[in-house]
Amino acid sequence: MNKQSDLSVLRHSAAHLLGHAVFELFPDTLLTIGPATKEGFFYDCVPQRSFKEEDLVAITQRMQEIVARNLSLEHKEISKSEARKLYAHNPFKLELIDQIPGETVGLATQGNFYDLCRGGHVARTGQLAHFKLLHISGSYWRADRNNAALQRISGTAFFTAEDLAAYLKRQDELAMYDHRVLGKQLDLFSFHEEGVGFPFFHPKGKAILNTMVSYMRELKQQHDYQEISTPTMLSDHLWRQSGHYEHYKENMYFLNVDEQPYAVKPMNCPGAILTYKTRPRSYRELPLKLAEFGHVHRHELSGALHGLLRVRAFTQDDVHIFCTSEQLQPQIEEIISMFTTMQSKFGFKKTSFSVATRPASSIGSDELWEIGTKALENSLIRAGLPYKIAAGDGAFYGPKIDASLEDSYGRQWTCCTIQIDFFQPENFDLSYIAPSGERVRPIIIHSTIFGSLERFFAIVLEHYRGNLPLWLAPIQARIMAITDAQQPHAQQWLTALKEVGIRAELDHSSDPIKAKIKTASLEKIPWMIIIGAREAEQAVATLRLHDGTQHANLTPEQLLTLFYEQTNIG
Amino acid sequence: MNKQSDLSVLRHSAAHLLGHAVFELFPDTLLTIGPATKEGFFYDCVPQRSFKEEDLVAITQRMQEIVARNLSLEHKEISKSEARKLYAHNPFKLELIDQIPGETVGLATQGNFYDLCRGGHVARTGQLAHFKLLHISGSYWRADRNNAALQRISGTAFFTAEDLAAYLKRQDELAMYDHRVLGKQLDLFSFHEEGVGFPFFHPKGKAILNTMVSYMRELKQQHDYQEISTPTMLSDHLWRQSGHYEHYKENMYFLNVDEQPYAVKPMNCPGAILTYKTRPRSYRELPLKLAEFGHVHRHELSGALHGLLRVRAFTQDDVHIFCTSEQLQPQIEEIISMFTTMQSKFGFKKTSFSVATRPASSIGSDELWEIGTKALENSLIRAGLPYKIAAGDGAFYGPKIDASLEDSYGRQWTCCTIQIDFFQPENFDLSYIAPSGERVRPIIIHSTIFGSLERFFAIVLEHYRGNLPLWLAPIQARIMAITDAQQPHAQQWLTALKEVGIRAELDHSSDPIKAKIKTASLEKIPWMIIIGAREAEQAVATLRLHDGTQHANLTPEQLLTLFYEQTNIG
Repeated sequence: MNKQSDLSVLRHSAAHLLGHAVFELFPDTLLTIGPATKEGFFYDCVPQRSFKEEDLVAITQRMQEIVARNLSLEHKEISKSEARKLYAHNPFKLELIDQIPGETVGLATQGNFYDLCRGGHVARTGQLAHFKLLHISGSYWRADRNNAALQRISGTAFFTAEDLAAYLKRQDELAMYDHRVLGKQLDLFSFHEEGVGFPFFHPKGKAILNTMVSYMRELKQQHDYQEISTPTMLSDHLWRQSGHYEHYKENMYFLNVDEQPYAVKPMNCPGAILTYKTRPRSYRELPLKLAEFGHVHRHELSGALHGLLRVRAFTQDDVHIFCTSEQLQPQIEEIISMFTTMQSKFGFKKTSFSVATRPASSIGSDELWEIGTKALENSLIRAGLPYKIAAGDGAFYGPKIDASLEDSYGRQWTCCTIQIDFFQPENFDLSYIAPSGERVRPIIIHSTIFGSLERFFAIVLEHYRGNLPLWLAPIQARIMAITDAQQPHAQQWLTALKEVGIRAELDHSSDPIKAKIKTASLEKIPWMIIIGAREAEQAVATLRLHDGTQHANLTPEQLLTLFYEQTNIG
Repeated sequence: MNKQSDLSVLRHSAAHLLGHAVFELFPDTLLTIGPATKEGFFYDCVPQRSFKEEDLVAITQRMQEIVARNLSLEHKEISKSEARKLYAHNPFKLELIDQIPGETVGLATQGNFYDLCRGGHVARTGQLAHFKLLHISGSYWRADRNNAALQRISGTAFFTAEDLAAYLKRQDELAMYDHRVLGKQLDLFSFHEEGVGFPFFHPKGKAILNTMVSYMRELKQQHDYQEISTPTMLSDHLWRQSGHYEHYKENMYFLNVDEQPYAVKPMNCPGAILTYKTRPRSYRELPLKLAEFGHVHRHELSGALHGLLRVRAFTQDDVHIFCTSEQLQPQIEEIISMFTTMQSKFGFKKTSFSVATRPASSIGSDELWEIGTKALENSLIRAGLPYKIAAGDGAFYGPKIDASLEDSYGRQWTCCTIQIDFFQPENFDLSYIAPSGERVRPIIIHSTIFGSLERFFAIVLEHYRGNLPLWLAPIQARIMAITDAQQPHAQQWLTALKEVGIRAELDHSSDPIKAKIKTASLEKIPWMIIIGAREAEQAVATLRLHDGTQHANLTPEQLLTLFYEQTNIG
């Protein structure tokens, strides 16, 4: 009983345990469904009065009591009519009964509590000691906001106290280094009720974003991408033509310009396509690789917003490649190589890839799909990168690669996508003039390396627990005089470092050096440059790294050499 | 008769001449007003059928005939009742008659044509030979779009044929080097009907914009400005609080978010103010200098749009300084110094300044206005920069400086403004903690150096007639092999130049070198790097500048030295 599937059994049983406790404490509560999840379990219900976080204490206590009773779990099949009688008062369970195929339904019983159930439990409640209730949240019956609003009690359960403790410790760490917490602590960004879901970047946060943009701009320039910028608002007519209106209008913001309907762009593709169409294109221009740091707006339900991980306005490092079918594979290989270069620069150790193939309903010839899918797979094979096939998961207009990074907690984040598109070139009647003089249809590759810059910012911040590497840190170095007598020397160091483009600051306070170090540590500044009387006299400095290691007696040249070494890692 | 005021007399008389010709050719036309302007004259009228450009030929011919008649111009005062009889059929003139104070109005007569007139004419129509009709456009009675639509015939007139020819030559040049023409010719940007007034920047145009942003970002960083970014859309509630809704709503775009009214930002101030308010501020943080490259949207009538000079979406290099009254002057001096640094870098030779002082209706104490206005004036005096006083032209919330550049045509462009604001700190209850522990109100300085980046882009493009200086050119160098045998050497040069960050390209064609040079000249590429057999052998290159001067036998090191010299000018 130690595999993930068995853990599901344990957690499913823990959900029954939770239901049992609620039933005993709040018998008028309508229970709905209580499944195991990837990280634990929950039970959705309609209480007589809304549950509050405080209620979790009493419920937990009652669950522990039921564990102590060590009740056996019985499972039997009963007729639907019998089940309907048991749940005559509960319309949710009645609906479930109706939807279960066949004439009988399963019922699990422990002591005086019974619950509809397909089966798969532990033998006795005594096996469920290592659980923890975590929080109360809102949900909807069948996850549909047009249905009844429910309350969800979530928790987790493990086989051993050690496993549970390890999980909770990781959760604590995740909470402590949640990017929203770090964002506030380090004064990086904020959200305001005057713009729900729209981040404000403070100077240090903006410095990080700017460094990310510079890095990606340079990486793309090295590969002859050409940067463009296209408008934030474009006519409704265009969004109808592109299909965004039909497929995406729920997430778009609309407004009027000259009394004509316009939309705020949720994607950059139509802008890139209009740019392509500005003039006739020759085969000599292909592959035409247009890059845009495009600021897009996508409506999300306010409940779905989550710091920078889920916002309503973000910047994509977008790429649209207009190319021939022969150019597909080299272009895809290039993107994969940029992605792995970026991964290593940002300190991620592991990647994973999946190739989404043709779905049942799709456009484009078999030959095109074959060429596109092969180009994606061969690119990964040539790069020696293992991948999964997500069979039939492609968009109706082409296959794609999803590329993910694994962070320092082992979480997977899909950032880079490489989407082949056979549809928009047709739809917008795109062409280039072939050597023969004929007009030929190009293919489009849509891609991003970071994905959303704001989301990637959050991922990186959590990955490093706020201790950003030297090259990316908003303040790279804080210079500190040990006593006021060395302030002029510290000022000289500051001037010298800023002159070569290092993001350095001076601690102007008269605090003792220990306090200065503590302040810089709390601000997670990677380099502290300390100038005491001896250092001032010898025109050297002591470099203290964020982890506490020290390099004494560095001349300015030595310090710069070390700086360039450490910022060129990756 | 050679001063500007006399030129006005000449042009005012030319407007009568135009009216006269229209009266003879199209007697049913209702004439309205026909004044002299800075560059010529116009007459607004309501024709029986709309005038077309072709009509200008016949009207010009008739004007020449009337010139040949050499009619004398008579001016007399007539009673208003007599005037009303003369203009019984013309409601516009009747309205003018009503509004002229006193019991009489002036009437100018030449041959069979008379016109309402305050006086000030040439003596005879024979003096008006050197005129030219230029175009027909739309206007409104009293320039109010709620009034009747009129047609405007515009022209110009000079005392001599030479002056007229010089003017027309300059106009031709302005037309040839109009930024809209250059933008298309050099593939810099485009406009599309899918986003009226919203520019699309093509790769080369975006490269110029990016260079401008990098330049300004670095200039501001040198002065310890801190960059932020704030949302594109913010709640209507905020815009009402800031006063933008009341004063500016005609130019704002509104939409709904979560069924709440929001507006697309027309200015960045509220975003900067909310950022300031994120946490309590100490006097130690002041002056807090927040910079934002803020993308704003402002509605303009489609008829008012004019390439990049007048768009509906643009990027401001915005600055908000939160400071004490003692800090005003040094901050203003710093901005003026950044402006003159920028002016010289972009190759403008002349600046001019005006200080707008307190208007009749305004907020803030006498003392604050005195401090603010003195800070502005003293900053200009200290910098040795002459300025005009625009008495009473300040905003209700504070005095300002407008700083203008003069371009190579002698045109003035106001770019930089330095606006002191006593209102928003009150309005948003801004404060900082003074050394005494008290909460004190800061002052805000709003400023931009470029103003709108898009508009400044257009100004610079026209100023240089498209021949951008090396540091700003989107393609800085084109490398050309004289024959295909030198292509590999050309490729080596390309790699070497790109590696040090030079925006270089290779001419891949097999065209003869003359054709390659011609192509690069047409594209206004400042540097052509030419590799023939001899250069390839000796590992040198010939540098040909856009003006045709050549530097032979440059080693890569010599070329780079020259490059850095030339890009650091200004």
